[in-house]
Amino acid sequence: RSNGQRLIETLESACAWGNTPDGGMNRLACNDDDGKVRQWFIDETKKCGCEIKIDAMGNMFAIRPGQNNNLPPIGIGSHLDTQPTGGKYDGILGVTSGIEVLQTLHANNITTYAPLAIINWTNEEGARFPPAMLASGVWGGAFTTEYGHGRTDQNGVTLKQELERIGFLGKTPCSFEANPLSAHFELHIEQGPMLDAAEFPVAVVRGVQSIRWYSIDIVGREAHTGTTPMDRRSDALLGAAKMIVEANRFVTEGDLAARGARATIAVIESGPGSINTIAGKVRLNLDIRAPTDLDVALVEELCRARFHEICEEQGLTMDIDHFWTSPALHFDPTMVQCVRESANKAGCQMELVSGAGHDSVYTSLKVPTAMMFVRCRDGVSHNPAEYSRPEDCAAGAEVLLGAYLRYDNY
Amino acid sequence: RSNGQRLIETLESACAWGNTPDGGMNRLACNDDDGKVRQWFIDETKKCGCEIKIDAMGNMFAIRPGQNNNLPPIGIGSHLDTQPTGGKYDGILGVTSGIEVLQTLHANNITTYAPLAIINWTNEEGARFPPAMLASGVWGGAFTTEYGHGRTDQNGVTLKQELERIGFLGKTPCSFEANPLSAHFELHIEQGPMLDAAEFPVAVVRGVQSIRWYSIDIVGREAHTGTTPMDRRSDALLGAAKMIVEANRFVTEGDLAARGARATIAVIESGPGSINTIAGKVRLNLDIRAPTDLDVALVEELCRARFHEICEEQGLTMDIDHFWTSPALHFDPTMVQCVRESANKAGCQMELVSGAGHDSVYTSLKVPTAMMFVRCRDGVSHNPAEYSRPEDCAAGAEVLLGAYLRYDNY
Ligand SMILES: NC(=O)NCCC(=O)O
Ligand SMILES: NC(=O)NCCC(=O)O
Repeated sequence: RSNGQRLIETLESACAWGNTPDGGMNRLACNDDDGKVRQWFIDETKKCGCEIKIDAMGNMFAIRPGQNNNLPPIGIGSHLDTQPTGGKYDGILGVTSGIEVLQTLHANNITTYAPLAIINWTNEEGARFPPAMLASGVWGGAFTTEYGHGRTDQNGVTLKQELERIGFLGKTPCSFEANPLSAHFELHIEQGPMLDAAEFPVAVVRGVQSIRWYSIDIVGREAHTGTTPMDRRSDALLGAAKMIVEANRFVTEGDLAARGARATIAVIESGPGSINTIAGKVRLNLDIRAPTDLDVALVEELCRARFHEICEEQGLTMDIDHFWTSPALHFDPTMVQCVRESANKAGCQMELVSGAGHDSVYTSLKVPTAMMFVRCRDGVSHNPAEYSRPEDCAAGAEVLLGAYLRYDNY
Repeated sequence: RSNGQRLIETLESACAWGNTPDGGMNRLACNDDDGKVRQWFIDETKKCGCEIKIDAMGNMFAIRPGQNNNLPPIGIGSHLDTQPTGGKYDGILGVTSGIEVLQTLHANNITTYAPLAIINWTNEEGARFPPAMLASGVWGGAFTTEYGHGRTDQNGVTLKQELERIGFLGKTPCSFEANPLSAHFELHIEQGPMLDAAEFPVAVVRGVQSIRWYSIDIVGREAHTGTTPMDRRSDALLGAAKMIVEANRFVTEGDLAARGARATIAVIESGPGSINTIAGKVRLNLDIRAPTDLDVALVEELCRARFHEICEEQGLTMDIDHFWTSPALHFDPTMVQCVRESANKAGCQMELVSGAGHDSVYTSLKVPTAMMFVRCRDGVSHNPAEYSRPEDCAAGAEVLLGAYLRYDNY
């Protein structure tokens, strides 16, 4: 059995770097605080006899030998990076629950059939280096290492530069082929309101919904706000505002709303940034999600058509860069069954499809993968108020341990 | 008579610092390039025997003695700072036309009745340190020097720090009382389409329309874009987008549109700036204008009411800071008459009310003030494509010289 008290202590130490005055976390991928928690991860896992491998994307694998060390390890992974307004559970609970499994095996002197790898995937959030799940995506073959290395933050700094700077540009090539696993489990907080509403501590995750990300550049014409008649303007920010309103309307009305489609624009930059110069250039990022790929495509189509109309009406030009697709996905039935049996044993029958993407999306391209969710208060995440009760975290870790041991036996 | 060829050469040298590859200017107030063009202004005016006074807001007065040096000088002023996407005429043509008047007097050995001051007012654009016309506003008593000094740019740097850094924090107190003028003429490009449509090179400016600026802070709740149901969001950027659309609607429909009201939001900042975190904080800047103060107040009232409704609908809170008011204004009749006579002599009958604010708005609080406009192509300003024909610039300078000499005689 795992130790809930120890898990919470591990979670707290994993949150020692990058915390904000409001009780949340701001530990963007590859910043100094990410560097510090990575060192902590090495120290913590080495205490349990692990060997550390770091790959070219900075992914960290803490490997504990098993009885059959010619088998690739079974992975338990998640991430230690956070949103700029992140909480203390998103990703961090997954890695620390993995460490809890490791510590339980270690304390009980258990040698598993296959080796075990506790994994910290780099830049899962994608908040600093879009897209999300970038480094597990490279491992899973969705992106090349060059693509991953070249992704830039808002200041134009590349991920590779930052990995080098914090000392975590590893030598192991980043791929399943060069550094295989035999399976991947991930525990994560739900980040949504379903478990909280249903009053279950833990859920089985059957799959992940469909996601697409876009970068949209809108070009109008800079002009004087005081002298330019309203009917002679090409106002890029007005056009952008109409797009934001329309994208929202498509997913809050009719069938798409009923089928749970979501569309969000959260990032906007407007230039030249002067109160009395009409905006000539705006960049938006659009995030579309739905349970099915078809519905995501439908929202995209509606947006494209309406956005083009808005550009015509407002005298604007536009460029839409659809730079990320993460299709809807079902996890491996055997792995899901291991999680299900373990969750049922803990009295949890709820099964969910994830609204968020996770590193498990990309590991599932190469190896049998499954996830479990822990309830979080009001479903709030990507917010300093994110919170999961200690007993729910403990229940999650116990379900993880059970699912993992079932698969290792199997 | 003034020398059109020389004026264009002077204009070109005044544009030697801060030009952009697209043929425009980016010389934000008190940046390094502003420092360089200020030195050029000193050198140029000293060649004509001027003495230089710099005040506590960095306003520069190049004073040429007259027959009666106990009289305050008659000012001819405008500004050498630009928008981030500015042109080569806005403000710069006004200062260089003043220098042209100076050079004409100097070349012809004319000693005027009163002394003459060619003036470069600091931070007229307000692009870097809002509000606009800040330093002429301090001189005119609309703001205190402390207020002016304390205004900050987007990086939190104060105007005083920047004046000190570029070496233009002068010793003369910034006020009409400490450093009086007896009148103020200003030549400016129209920045609007009226002269171009009417095919006149120059217009008499009768006054300036009403302006108000606001900073609006909108607070929602950061949450995950993938997991947060559409009906459980407090999306600050969605709220902001609705406000932008509504403000535009108020001035493009019905009576307010017919009466020429304008409302623009050109500056927006959204936090935390992560694609998968719903925006929790947005700041907007709103610019409202109309020929009458009443209509500006009406647009404000409509915006306030509707913005509050939007906040209620979207679960947001809002704070509106109305930080600048520039009431509608009529210039001094005697001064306007001097401009009119001079313009009519050049065959120009057009009379306009300015859509943009100018330093003359604030000098008019203390001394008789008037302006003339030079036609600019398509009415485009605050844009690198801003352009006035050399012959129109020359015509403007000639009207300025005539108006100035009329007033000096008078
Ligand atoms: N778990 C999580 O917040 N991942 C970020 C990827 C996404 O945007 O869904
Ligand atoms: N002339 C000019 O562009 N002034 C800036 C002040 C304003 O916004 O009207």
